[in-house]
Amino acid sequence: MNDSPQVITIDNLTEFCVGALRNCGVSEADALLTAQTLATTDAWGVFTHGTKALRGYLRRLKGGGLAPRGVPSVVTEGPGWAVVDGDSSLGMVTSTYAMDVALGKARQTGLGYVGVRNSCHFGAAGAYAAQAAQVGFIGLAMANDIPSVAAPGSRGAVTGSNPLAYAVPAGRHRPLMLDMSIATVAGGKVYAARERGEPIPATWLIDEQGRPTDDPRAYPEHSTLTPAAGHKGFGLALLIETLAGALTGAAMTTRVGSWLAGDPAAPTHHGAAFLVVDVAAIGPDLPGRIESLIDEIHAAPRADTADRLYVPGEKEWENLDRSIRDGIALPPDVVASLRQAAVIGDVDLDPYLKQP
Amino acid sequence: MNDSPQVITIDNLTEFCVGALRNCGVSEADALLTAQTLATTDAWGVFTHGTKALRGYLRRLKGGGLAPRGVPSVVTEGPGWAVVDGDSSLGMVTSTYAMDVALGKARQTGLGYVGVRNSCHFGAAGAYAAQAAQVGFIGLAMANDIPSVAAPGSRGAVTGSNPLAYAVPAGRHRPLMLDMSIATVAGGKVYAARERGEPIPATWLIDEQGRPTDDPRAYPEHSTLTPAAGHKGFGLALLIETLAGALTGAAMTTRVGSWLAGDPAAPTHHGAAFLVVDVAAIGPDLPGRIESLIDEIHAAPRADTADRLYVPGEKEWENLDRSIRDGIALPPDVVASLRQAAVIGDVDLDPYLKQP
Repeated sequence: MNDSPQVITIDNLTEFCVGALRNCGVSEADALLTAQTLATTDAWGVFTHGTKALRGYLRRLKGGGLAPRGVPSVVTEGPGWAVVDGDSSLGMVTSTYAMDVALGKARQTGLGYVGVRNSCHFGAAGAYAAQAAQVGFIGLAMANDIPSVAAPGSRGAVTGSNPLAYAVPAGRHRPLMLDMSIATVAGGKVYAARERGEPIPATWLIDEQGRPTDDPRAYPEHSTLTPAAGHKGFGLALLIETLAGALTGAAMTTRVGSWLAGDPAAPTHHGAAFLVVDVAAIGPDLPGRIESLIDEIHAAPRADTADRLYVPGEKEWENLDRSIRDGIALPPDVVASLRQAAVIGDVDLDPYLKQP
Repeated sequence: MNDSPQVITIDNLTEFCVGALRNCGVSEADALLTAQTLATTDAWGVFTHGTKALRGYLRRLKGGGLAPRGVPSVVTEGPGWAVVDGDSSLGMVTSTYAMDVALGKARQTGLGYVGVRNSCHFGAAGAYAAQAAQVGFIGLAMANDIPSVAAPGSRGAVTGSNPLAYAVPAGRHRPLMLDMSIATVAGGKVYAARERGEPIPATWLIDEQGRPTDDPRAYPEHSTLTPAAGHKGFGLALLIETLAGALTGAAMTTRVGSWLAGDPAAPTHHGAAFLVVDVAAIGPDLPGRIESLIDEIHAAPRADTADRLYVPGEKEWENLDRSIRDGIALPPDVVASLRQAAVIGDVDLDPYLKQP
């Protein structure tokens, strides 16, 4: 198997995903929205949360745990908020809709919160935060998940890795955009060390007795990711669980389904939350002030080891530019996953991998 | 000098602070509110942000940088939000007012955001988050500050330690309450290691070349705190700077004044932000669901080294119970600071230190 990256254009990757989703019963519009979200995530260089996940979604669409023609809708609402039932539609479909509802609320009151239940894995939280920033609003997006991260003092997983993203308009710069999980590192980094046969820093994992371990080999069966900065990451996990789970009626902790490994016929009942702030109403100077803040950070004195100081999102926007120009260099694990997606979705991948 | 803790009742500590603040021109009502906030913070065991700071506030009240009779007010507003000018009043006065305005907005629209400018150091962010949770709302509080924390790759300080707090109603349990800074550790932990003559973990500080250092002796003149979890803490710092600084018209980064060391005649122009979510309107089941979540965490398997698993705020609420019952055991550094406050505020501390 070829280990070098496989270059694909954003358009070809999108089209491949659209075809596979459509063949699993998803409408043209929802297939396009989902495909664009996943392909953009890959174009940002966030390969853990892009089209690599398509295979899992297709499996659920065929199994019935994801409803190909699900239609998310508002179930309760007030002037500045709404709760959306995702109707087990694709996480991208529900989340884009929910962020759109939140934007509408913010246009009315200055602020919008939309909580979501009956959603599924929503990919990269940053995609929905960016959706708000691209129309001039501050956006936040977060979601809960099955437990995969320890609490300080625990032996095993207590909270999800609960992603949190924000995006902020930044004048002549692209939006500030942070997309983080509350774990010290992503599980993918542990797998990578295991494949290289290297030990990991003793701060990444605990073993089954709750002790720090530098051995990546027992992950994930017999070791657990630690929360970032200990009680701080754990505390943020519970805030996200509050806004995305407890407030929305979604499943919480062990009652969330595994979107990747679980029964493909059973909905996962993930929760999510979207928050929007109307910059034009509250602080019209904000984009200029953030622009200056970024300039100030770029000009700050650097360590000898640092070529540049990056602000959140900067690397992703530069990766996007490069992907638009040169295509996306898909890592081998993503290509392997797409080949499995091609089988489930009954679309031939190879024609899309050829240069246009 | 006596190095053992000095026990004081919450009422006595409050009365002492009221007297000193009143003698510096603060109204009875504002003095009481400020004193109660600071004494409660000590009663939580958060001694870095309680009455230890009184001395600095009194110095500014006398110098004119804090206005003893300042009156915070709403300068712009919409259905779900407001921007408050603190009028250089005490941070506790402005912040309590701002959280109250945010609660009023949330009662109308479900959600409230209040941004604050012309504030000063507001003590423990958790105090204002708790203010919301105590009336059944989810509350968040945050503030910016002068740069004291590095960015990944920087040589020196780039952002403030920018506190972030939240509190969430939790049924029969006391509210979940997290109060964190975005630094790996507080500067106080570095000072403590220095006093004990011990090295620190190499993850806490960088030296003037931006390299990790385990030597606490050069702090803070020649070394800088690191952001918690690297780019995650840095990213959260910029989100807080966005909501508390850029959106409010407050000073940002190097233009914020030092409330402790700066010219006592000059306002510091700190910014702050308060966010409120109306639980009763959006998710009336939330307190019960958070109660169950806490029960689940308490019952999770523990490492041999952990007697209990704590949720955020649990230690502080237990400290409060103990302080109500036995009085607050003030550490020597707090007592020393209160003795200086006694001189500035022209109040004799000793009568308050005697048991009632």
